[in-house]
Amino acid sequence: MTRFMKKSSNKSGLPPGSLIHIGEKKTDKSTITIFDYDKDVLEEKTIDNISECVNLKKTPTVSWINITGLHDISVIEKIGQIFEIHPLVLEDILYTDQRPKYDEFDKYIFIVLKMLRYDEKTEQIITEQISVILTENYVISFQEMEGDVFNPIRDRIRGGKGRIRKLGTDYLTYSLIDAIVDNYFLILEKVGEKIEELEEEVISNPRPEIVQTIHRLKREMLFLRKSVWPLREVINNLQKNESKLIKKTTIIFLRDIYDHTIQVMDTVETYRDMISGLLDIYMSSISNKMNEVMKVLTIFAAIFIPLTFIAGIYGMNFDYMPELSIPWAYPLVWAIFIGIGLTLFGYFKHKKWV
Amino acid sequence: MTRFMKKSSNKSGLPPGSLIHIGEKKTDKSTITIFDYDKDVLEEKTIDNISECVNLKKTPTVSWINITGLHDISVIEKIGQIFEIHPLVLEDILYTDQRPKYDEFDKYIFIVLKMLRYDEKTEQIITEQISVILTENYVISFQEMEGDVFNPIRDRIRGGKGRIRKLGTDYLTYSLIDAIVDNYFLILEKVGEKIEELEEEVISNPRPEIVQTIHRLKREMLFLRKSVWPLREVINNLQKNESKLIKKTTIIFLRDIYDHTIQVMDTVETYRDMISGLLDIYMSSISNKMNEVMKVLTIFAAIFIPLTFIAGIYGMNFDYMPELSIPWAYPLVWAIFIGIGLTLFGYFKHKKWV
Amino acid sequence: MTRFMKKSSNKSGLPPGSLIHIGEKKTDKSTITIFDYDKDVLEEKTIDNISECVNLKKTPTVSWINITGLHDISVIEKIGQIFEIHPLVLEDILYTDQRPKYDEFDKYIFIVLKMLRYDEKTEQIITEQISVILTENYVISFQEMEGDVFNPIRDRIRGGKGRIRKLGTDYLTYSLIDAIVDNYFLILEKVGEKIEELEEEVISNPRPEIVQTIHRLKREMLFLRKSVWPLREVINNLQKNESKLIKKTTIIFLRDIYDHTIQVMDTVETYRDMISGLLDIYMSSISNKMNEVMKVLTIFAAIFIPLTFIAGIYGMNFDYMPELSIPWAYPLVWAIFIGIGLTLFGYFKHKKWV
Amino acid sequence: MTRFMKKSSNKSGLPPGSLIHIGEKKTDKSTITIFDYDKDVLEEKTIDNISECVNLKKTPTVSWINITGLHDISVIEKIGQIFEIHPLVLEDILYTDQRPKYDEFDKYIFIVLKMLRYDEKTEQIITEQISVILTENYVISFQEMEGDVFNPIRDRIRGGKGRIRKLGTDYLTYSLIDAIVDNYFLILEKVGEKIEELEEEVISNPRPEIVQTIHRLKREMLFLRKSVWPLREVINNLQKNESKLIKKTTIIFLRDIYDHTIQVMDTVETYRDMISGLLDIYMSSISNKMNEVMKVLTIFAAIFIPLTFIAGIYGMNFDYMPELSIPWAYPLVWAIFIGIGLTLFGYFKHKKWV
Amino acid sequence: MTRFMKKSSNKSGLPPGSLIHIGEKKTDKSTITIFDYDKDVLEEKTIDNISECVNLKKTPTVSWINITGLHDISVIEKIGQIFEIHPLVLEDILYTDQRPKYDEFDKYIFIVLKMLRYDEKTEQIITEQISVILTENYVISFQEMEGDVFNPIRDRIRGGKGRIRKLGTDYLTYSLIDAIVDNYFLILEKVGEKIEELEEEVISNPRPEIVQTIHRLKREMLFLRKSVWPLREVINNLQKNESKLIKKTTIIFLRDIYDHTIQVMDTVETYRDMISGLLDIYMSSISNKMNEVMKVLTIFAAIFIPLTFIAGIYGMNFDYMPELSIPWAYPLVWAIFIGIGLTLFGYFKHKKWV
Repeated sequence: MTRFMKKSSNKSGLPPGSLIHIGEKKTDKSTITIFDYDKDVLEEKTIDNISECVNLKKTPTVSWINITGLHDISVIEKIGQIFEIHPLVLEDILYTDQRPKYDEFDKYIFIVLKMLRYDEKTEQIITEQISVILTENYVISFQEMEGDVFNPIRDRIRGGKGRIRKLGTDYLTYSLIDAIVDNYFLILEKVGEKIEELEEEVISNPRPEIVQTIHRLKREMLFLRKSVWPLREVINNLQKNESKLIKKTTIIFLRDIYDHTIQVMDTVETYRDMISGLLDIYMSSISNKMNEVMKVLTIFAAIFIPLTFIAGIYGMNFDYMPELSIPWAYPLVWAIFIGIGLTLFGYFKHKKWV
Repeated sequence: MTRFMKKSSNKSGLPPGSLIHIGEKKTDKSTITIFDYDKDVLEEKTIDNISECVNLKKTPTVSWINITGLHDISVIEKIGQIFEIHPLVLEDILYTDQRPKYDEFDKYIFIVLKMLRYDEKTEQIITEQISVILTENYVISFQEMEGDVFNPIRDRIRGGKGRIRKLGTDYLTYSLIDAIVDNYFLILEKVGEKIEELEEEVISNPRPEIVQTIHRLKREMLFLRKSVWPLREVINNLQKNESKLIKKTTIIFLRDIYDHTIQVMDTVETYRDMISGLLDIYMSSISNKMNEVMKVLTIFAAIFIPLTFIAGIYGMNFDYMPELSIPWAYPLVWAIFIGIGLTLFGYFKHKKWV
Repeated sequence: MTRFMKKSSNKSGLPPGSLIHIGEKKTDKSTITIFDYDKDVLEEKTIDNISECVNLKKTPTVSWINITGLHDISVIEKIGQIFEIHPLVLEDILYTDQRPKYDEFDKYIFIVLKMLRYDEKTEQIITEQISVILTENYVISFQEMEGDVFNPIRDRIRGGKGRIRKLGTDYLTYSLIDAIVDNYFLILEKVGEKIEELEEEVISNPRPEIVQTIHRLKREMLFLRKSVWPLREVINNLQKNESKLIKKTTIIFLRDIYDHTIQVMDTVETYRDMISGLLDIYMSSISNKMNEVMKVLTIFAAIFIPLTFIAGIYGMNFDYMPELSIPWAYPLVWAIFIGIGLTLFGYFKHKKWV
Repeated sequence: MTRFMKKSSNKSGLPPGSLIHIGEKKTDKSTITIFDYDKDVLEEKTIDNISECVNLKKTPTVSWINITGLHDISVIEKIGQIFEIHPLVLEDILYTDQRPKYDEFDKYIFIVLKMLRYDEKTEQIITEQISVILTENYVISFQEMEGDVFNPIRDRIRGGKGRIRKLGTDYLTYSLIDAIVDNYFLILEKVGEKIEELEEEVISNPRPEIVQTIHRLKREMLFLRKSVWPLREVINNLQKNESKLIKKTTIIFLRDIYDHTIQVMDTVETYRDMISGLLDIYMSSISNKMNEVMKVLTIFAAIFIPLTFIAGIYGMNFDYMPELSIPWAYPLVWAIFIGIGLTLFGYFKHKKWV
Repeated sequence: MTRFMKKSSNKSGLPPGSLIHIGEKKTDKSTITIFDYDKDVLEEKTIDNISECVNLKKTPTVSWINITGLHDISVIEKIGQIFEIHPLVLEDILYTDQRPKYDEFDKYIFIVLKMLRYDEKTEQIITEQISVILTENYVISFQEMEGDVFNPIRDRIRGGKGRIRKLGTDYLTYSLIDAIVDNYFLILEKVGEKIEELEEEVISNPRPEIVQTIHRLKREMLFLRKSVWPLREVINNLQKNESKLIKKTTIIFLRDIYDHTIQVMDTVETYRDMISGLLDIYMSSISNKMNEVMKVLTIFAAIFIPLTFIAGIYGMNFDYMPELSIPWAYPLVWAIFIGIGLTLFGYFKHKKWV
């Protein structure tokens, strides 16, 4: 649950624009990698000191500055100074409990995205905040820890084939978003498999723990929806933005991601419906089990309690009980026992309780 | 469930516009059939090599190029080259897990539709993606496998009667959509019959498996809704589009399909409500069964347990039990047995438990 | 249920505009009645041949042509030819599974409405499609079978008093819609009474069949909503239409029906809420019944099983059981029986189970 | 329930604008009271004949004509003639089953409101329709029976202090609406107290009748919502209306009522949620009770049935039962009885069933 | 519950603009503190007589007048006179049951906010109304009692560092809202922890009281939502307002709070879903418990009732019962007892009931 409400207590009371990183420290050292390219040239390097980026600010080539690790606030601050970023944007980059958002400023567009990861061990969806600043000739991306879904993009830039090297920062930004959204499908596939498993289990073996699993899955879906839902609006804003940062040719591609986002949301909603359905199946399984238990009890009780009563009658010690001395009385009582037993059994058979 | 989330894992990481067919290979060979007609002339042929279509691009006659089977990517690529289709469109054609969509380009309109089929054996609704590219003088349609709902249209073109031969590509496209939507009604009819059957069964014989069937039906409705819901917007966009590809006379026809789509959605929603209702009926049936079982148990136990106790009393071996030696004591005890039994039975009768 | 999805299978595959009547043949013969009137003159006649209407097309008087019975397609076709109606409109008139709709054409407005009837025997709401074509000097109305809610309008026309004779086709059309909507209130009243009855029954005698009745009523409400909901939009469109067919003075009257329609929808929604509430009451009644049964069982079992055990003890045949020979042991055991019985009874009384 | 659907059957079939009062006759005689005032002068009188109002129509003073009792249709008709009111408005005034509505005409604004009253005896909310006609120099208000919430307004007019005497008909109308809306808060307070009571009761003593009370309360909320919801739109329309009847200074006051209306709706929705919650609590209370009953049964049965069996063993009459002749066998059996009894009791204690 | 509907009865009937404080008297004395500052100068004082503020009205410095305690109506009235505030605004300030609202007047903006506090003892969220009047050179804030979340702002003003001293009244107002919204996160964190606790408890120990706790938590969420939801609109209005009171630089900050508000709402909705889920878990826990109880009962009854019957048979006193004299009959019966017992036990084991 804490995932829904990260410790933000240490933040409240501070003036707006205060830079505090609220997430856990997820990586040891901030690393800064730079891809600086145009159609013909590519320079890729990892730098230690953010000041080395200053010159990139003005070159007409596309520069992709990727910062991994947010705990070193001085790096973020320096970037803010170099690239003239609004303090609230810096605050948002560090405050990793943000919803996906789109903010348009005079000279740049600021986007917050959620990169997802499925932790097989805890069966939880883990979220990582990716913040992107897009200007005319550079893209700065921030991620909380190492490991991302951008390697295919890096390979494509290195390869130099395809569109990416020929197009500008807007296409690069699109590629980043696209990689993140494509990854959602992988997550959904995993969740889908999990639901399928649960579905079989809830029917074959409705253990009480299943309710918790269903509940947990429901929460994962809430979590996923929270991460994906605002993305729609982000992409919508990108498509409709009036600055010249997004070129017309890129908008067609954005329309494509928009469709994908809708599809992700659709699937999330469908999964939510399915998971709710699982609970219905579980509850009816439980009712059925209870019914079965009750039937067993009723059959045993209804057959043997009357018989015991009859046996009890002839266990009475009255002096005058004429039946007791009749030789065929005992066999007759047996016959009555069997007769009553079979009759009742037949009755329950008829009622389809057996 | 996999129907909701087809394996798209092998796709993620590829650059946008990569052509990979994600569906199963549903047919062996791609076949290309062409209808080239105007008011007076009709040519119908099946070709092997897509290059033969090149000249159709410029003739003023209406050309309907129908491609069946999507696994042969080279065919799709060549079509892309010949007809200058945007790579993302080609990607969408192959990625058969698309929602119905409408995309307008400079020279053509791209539509994705879902053709449905009801598989009697698995009682599932099977979906097939139909993509349509509409330009001023040709319509290209793509389908995943052989067999479609377009034969009546083919017959009408061949017959040469009616409007279709006199009107343009927009009317042909309308006809394709209309055939698909008309088919939805057939599917809904089948589902309606299924619900009707279930309704009788859930009352007469509420087996536990019924919950699964209800659940499955619910999922089919989710699936159906997912296929139909975006269609509304597709048709709306077609009606309101500003290119000259859709003529005013065709818009009246589109309005008609729009109405049909709304009607399909209405029915889907109604069915969803009904199916939810089935679950209520089932749960209350189960409760009633349980009540009945409990009543049988209670009646047997409440009547015979006290009687057994009385019999037990006179089975005690105390030396001094004056009743034991009274001759009419035994008959009296019988009278008491019968008296108590009838009284309790009457009580339960009065309570309407019997 | 078939009411939600009439057999439309025989229609699919036909070219749009094909005239097929999908409803049951509800009347034997199509009858055509004509009211031709203005402020001063009234002619009322029943004709056999639709061709007799031709001249009405041009006279400035208001002509109301009412066609009862839709199975005679030739009549519909001829009307189409005489009055130049679009084939899709004719198709809609015959396809009686339409939702209420409003279509505006160059020279006429086409409206589809649903006239309701409450069948006391099956306790079902029966729907009949009324299609109306409104032009400047004539109104053509189509109904599926004989018997309608328009007699008061006919009387008002005949009487010549009131507004109707002085006003045009738009007021006549308004009057038709008004009569239909007024009738909805009668239907709702019947349903309201039915709900009231059910409410008493569900409390006093919660039979299992009641769930079905509740379910059926719920479905009637779904059905009603489906018929009324789109009407709002129809009237809205009529009010806002830009053709000169609807005069400003009539719009005030349309606003009034709009209010009524909202009120009908409100009541339908309220009824739906109430019906859902009935299910809650039913389920809790069932739980209460079960509780009561369980209490009876528990009281009997908990009192007599221990007593039977004590009786069993002194029924044992051990040689050495000193209590057996004590003279006051038997009365003491009786005292114990009564003591335990009363104590337990008191305990259950205290727990308010008795 | 009839409150949701008053007998309107006697109305259907009549021409629009027919004057029929559908409510019960709630008062014996129509009384007409008039307040005619401006900043300096006040005349208050009760008149018998509506014709005496004719001259008020033209005087520049604010005239508030209040008609109590709607059964005397001739009065309403005369008012219609004198003040030139549209017949549909007169119809709406008499048809007291109206939703709150706002209608703007050339020379006047017509408003329908719902005045509420909480009947302590039946614990029902009773509704009374207040219709108001607002023109530049007079306000006509219609109420169904005597007794209203307007006395404070009358006192303020008489007192001559405050704004009311200085401002026009729009402020008077605002005051009337404000008095009605203020009254809603009183009703809500009563309902709130009722819910509070129920909440305690449902926990301490979940009697079956409580479900009905919950259900009834739910219905009251549906009823209240139906009366209040459309009010929002009425006030909105008043604020935005373009006639000069509403002055700018009054709009600030209307904004205030708008806020109150929203607050009323908010509270109604909150109450609805709470009432639904009560049902959940009730159902879980019932389940808990059932659990408790089952536990008592199980404990008694599980302890004494095995013991009875053991007693039964030594009640058998086999010739050769060596234990029977052992002197310490009987005490041993007692020890076993007690041992088993305590063990099982301990087991249930451990399970927290006792 | 009274929190949802404070005693407003004593208010109804009064003329609009009447000043009555409806909340409880939460503090003894009204205190007025003033911060009067610009970039260079800061004056901070606590005054007794509101008249001392008069001169602040005109100075160009930013003046923050904070009034604590609303029961002294004369203070509020004087403020109204001095600063020319509309009577309805004064009424709203005192009527502390207001929803968050935004009202724009010619010379000032009026905002109502809700400051929250989590009372650890009663586990309730307590609300306090903060009203803010914003003009070009002063901000007046009203709070119900002492103690607020504004101390960090006061410190920042005193410190003179950061933006606040350099910017105007709009930034001060923003800071107040920001402090309040930041505080919501703290409340949500507390609620989140509470839900986490409950979640563990509902699984490990589903006591009946838990339903009440769940219910109470649900109500807290309703309460929270009611306080937060309208805030969105307030901030939206501030952002879009057309007066010059809000400068463009401040709007970026407002956009930030807007995002926070959305995030609060998101979390509230997520919590609501989770709390509903808790109820599902509870209900299924209860069902499971019941199942367990039933199984114990059934196992005991089903094993020992048949055995008791067999023992009963050989307790019968028939003269002719040949088995009784067979020496190995008694051991054989024991064998049968054990055999049947083990068989049934094995059967239940197989059914996984043990």
